[in-house]
Amino acid sequence: MAESVDLNADLGEGFGAWELGDDEAMLGVVTSANVACGFHAGDPALLLRTCRQATSRGVRVGAQVSYRDLAGFGRRFIDVTPEDLTAEVIYQIGALQAIAHAAGTTVSYVKPHGALYNTIVHHPEQAAAVAAAVHAVDPGLPVLGLAGSAFFEEARGRGLRTVAEAFADRAYQPNGTLVSRREAGAVLHDPVAIADRVATMVTTGQVVAVDGTTVAVAVESVCVHGDSPGAVDIATAVRERLLADGIRLSPFS
Amino acid sequence: MAESVDLNADLGEGFGAWELGDDEAMLGVVTSANVACGFHAGDPALLLRTCRQATSRGVRVGAQVSYRDLAGFGRRFIDVTPEDLTAEVIYQIGALQAIAHAAGTTVSYVKPHGALYNTIVHHPEQAAAVAAAVHAVDPGLPVLGLAGSAFFEEARGRGLRTVAEAFADRAYQPNGTLVSRREAGAVLHDPVAIADRVATMVTTGQVVAVDGTTVAVAVESVCVHGDSPGAVDIATAVRERLLADGIRLSPFS
Amino acid sequence: MAESVDLNADLGEGFGAWELGDDEAMLGVVTSANVACGFHAGDPALLLRTCRQATSRGVRVGAQVSYRDLAGFGRRFIDVTPEDLTAEVIYQIGALQAIAHAAGTTVSYVKPHGALYNTIVHHPEQAAAVAAAVHAVDPGLPVLGLAGSAFFEEARGRGLRTVAEAFADRAYQPNGTLVSRREAGAVLHDPVAIADRVATMVTTGQVVAVDGTTVAVAVESVCVHGDSPGAVDIATAVRERLLADGIRLSPFS
Amino acid sequence: MAESVDLNADLGEGFGAWELGDDEAMLGVVTSANVACGFHAGDPALLLRTCRQATSRGVRVGAQVSYRDLAGFGRRFIDVTPEDLTAEVIYQIGALQAIAHAAGTTVSYVKPHGALYNTIVHHPEQAAAVAAAVHAVDPGLPVLGLAGSAFFEEARGRGLRTVAEAFADRAYQPNGTLVSRREAGAVLHDPVAIADRVATMVTTGQVVAVDGTTVAVAVESVCVHGDSPGAVDIATAVRERLLADGIRLSPFS
Repeated sequence: MAESVDLNADLGEGFGAWELGDDEAMLGVVTSANVACGFHAGDPALLLRTCRQATSRGVRVGAQVSYRDLAGFGRRFIDVTPEDLTAEVIYQIGALQAIAHAAGTTVSYVKPHGALYNTIVHHPEQAAAVAAAVHAVDPGLPVLGLAGSAFFEEARGRGLRTVAEAFADRAYQPNGTLVSRREAGAVLHDPVAIADRVATMVTTGQVVAVDGTTVAVAVESVCVHGDSPGAVDIATAVRERLLADGIRLSPFS
Repeated sequence: MAESVDLNADLGEGFGAWELGDDEAMLGVVTSANVACGFHAGDPALLLRTCRQATSRGVRVGAQVSYRDLAGFGRRFIDVTPEDLTAEVIYQIGALQAIAHAAGTTVSYVKPHGALYNTIVHHPEQAAAVAAAVHAVDPGLPVLGLAGSAFFEEARGRGLRTVAEAFADRAYQPNGTLVSRREAGAVLHDPVAIADRVATMVTTGQVVAVDGTTVAVAVESVCVHGDSPGAVDIATAVRERLLADGIRLSPFS
Repeated sequence: MAESVDLNADLGEGFGAWELGDDEAMLGVVTSANVACGFHAGDPALLLRTCRQATSRGVRVGAQVSYRDLAGFGRRFIDVTPEDLTAEVIYQIGALQAIAHAAGTTVSYVKPHGALYNTIVHHPEQAAAVAAAVHAVDPGLPVLGLAGSAFFEEARGRGLRTVAEAFADRAYQPNGTLVSRREAGAVLHDPVAIADRVATMVTTGQVVAVDGTTVAVAVESVCVHGDSPGAVDIATAVRERLLADGIRLSPFS
Repeated sequence: MAESVDLNADLGEGFGAWELGDDEAMLGVVTSANVACGFHAGDPALLLRTCRQATSRGVRVGAQVSYRDLAGFGRRFIDVTPEDLTAEVIYQIGALQAIAHAAGTTVSYVKPHGALYNTIVHHPEQAAAVAAAVHAVDPGLPVLGLAGSAFFEEARGRGLRTVAEAFADRAYQPNGTLVSRREAGAVLHDPVAIADRVATMVTTGQVVAVDGTTVAVAVESVCVHGDSPGAVDIATAVRERLLADGIRLSPFS
């Protein structure tokens, strides 16, 4: 179906003395880098190095915005007010914009991280708060997220371009949402199986859910994880399989 | 001598539940607001509110960048590497740029805060790091600081416009630097005396030092403090005295 | 009914340069000080000063434990795992124990703060996590909280002593819980009315709810707020009214 | 000379999602674990796990106190006031005491970390502040540090027991201090050479300095690093060499 697809991964997620993932290797695989913005990870010097590497590798940079939660890596829901959340997201995007500019690139899109990503699938107030923040910074900034989410509805209501992503290594429910990480089988680990699955999703727009049924899945970008064991191997397998199938890898337009 | 001068003060220096100073009142007095950037003070929601108020009052916004030190309010020297410091300053300016943009204004200049301000008077590496950061964000951004400082030398070396400020309520040494806060008489408290002193500095370019000698002092902007007791009264006295003397109050060009 | 009652208030809730409330004045009113532990407020130097003042005023110290959330002042629910929460509460109690020891006193009880307080009224996992933490530090440490809460059930299940508190300035629902702060009339402001109400609660064990019905309310301690406008006046009015009614003010046993 | 010596290493230095070093392996090598206290590293849940592992492996726990600097991993000098520093160190020791207690062990000593360690070699005010903090928590708590340091002088002046440590993998200057990490050859990497060197230091009380001269070095404990590449191999080589030479490995008394 698709002739080209975007591959995105989270980068710049260390902090100070702490490293996470192999950013250098992932930059050789993906076409879009979701760079942390300092609220769940990413000290400014790391962000600057990461943006410079992305620039030199020709990889596009997006702002991976999060709840303010270094201790929890942004993986915990925080009942922040919409007013605070909007300001926090504006702050993060702006911080990365200046870092990206200093590195010779720009912030091309926004992708919420972790618990914020999951929350705004179904939480209208926080979804609206994030969409309002992106719009306030630049109405031309696309947002990456889940098709059918409250976030996409709020984003479109403000005229923002929404880019639907699929997850390379996650099991799907019959309704098209992800199987919770708390359930067995939620995360796939075999690079070949994952690559097959992604190739099918991209070419057919469909994926086999955990119950064996086939469900439609919108895919303008494929998310590969950068911090799990074997992450680089999986991402590389996905990339090579797509190329072998004649799919061009390029940033979403 | 001068026909017009800028009045600047620090604003947006609360954090979350904590307030500091009377921003509303100060915005009625000054022409330039040094708005905190979140590293020594200023949660994003407060920064957004402050920038909105500045916009509606017609007060220009500058980025008040700092060491990363909420617990110490940016008042403690930190031996951060130049590489880290440059990235941290870029990050802060960018964050406030987006906040300012969302509030209908822009960041018009950069002023270092507290211990960073004092350190880069004489610390060439950190001075260079801050100047490099401002230049990386926008070579057209002026910096506010102390005439004769290492910071100004580094800033000019990169082609940045430097704006010399004088302190309304601080005693000067014969060599033109400030008397340390640890010494008696370092800070002046009487609004009338302070207003007289500022009027003299602005009109003659001179100030009487603690030893009674007269020293030259460059004044394109006058810093009035916003968080001390009587701050608003002092700032108002300075403003009214300058206006009474026929000095126009307007942002530096 | 009661011949004596405890008066508690939150103290030590500034942070670095930021102050909150009038701790000095409140220490002249209350019998128990809920001292912050650094996670929602309270830098160590402030905590040490507060504990020293409490010691010299003969006021007992309790550990006011919180979610890790300086930016939100601990007022926002965080979906932290029970394992993390238990460790965080142990950490906070221990930190304050050493501070209290250095100040010549001890931590005599534990009181959760803000959103954590409200959450563990009805959230069994987090309630159990907090109770487990207190028990791990010292099974002899009483906990202050809401009668009928999940927290009290978990605490009692571990053999902890629970101390029920009533709120001086809050409206009650017919079922004995508090009216949400988001509803009009949730917080009372008139010192005389509040003092009357507390006197009635303490002597009769009953309070008039918002619908006019009378409900039972367990009161071993009365919480007076320290950071609202008029806080000291209200606390003083409560204290004087209780003393006038022949109620002794003393820490719970 | 010595019949037994202590081996210490830094542990619990991850934070949230970030890991550092192989604590599990190091606990099989050392006799004393310098456990982080949350100011440069170590979220409470990690500290609790680390203390539990130390307990089950029979390794003694010490409090590794630091400047408040997660972003800098405590490796940057901060010009904190002695008053603040004392309170911060008390806070950290207390926090780890409660964590250790919950894990079935106790804090047996205190060792400053990183820039604080280096600063109080020569900074009398901060040295006094740390010594005062340890004394305030427990005058019976030994401190681990550098022989001849201002810290040891301040500690002894307060009656604290001082335990001199040597560094397994660091080059020494002729005056017995360490060669700065910024100079070439400051850090040794060969496990065999390091093990030889430690064996000589422990048995003779001497070490060959960078200029070839022999200098005396006090050794009650040997510090092996846990976070460098090859750390476990080096620590294991040191351990085995000492045992082979008939030196007993046991915590200092």
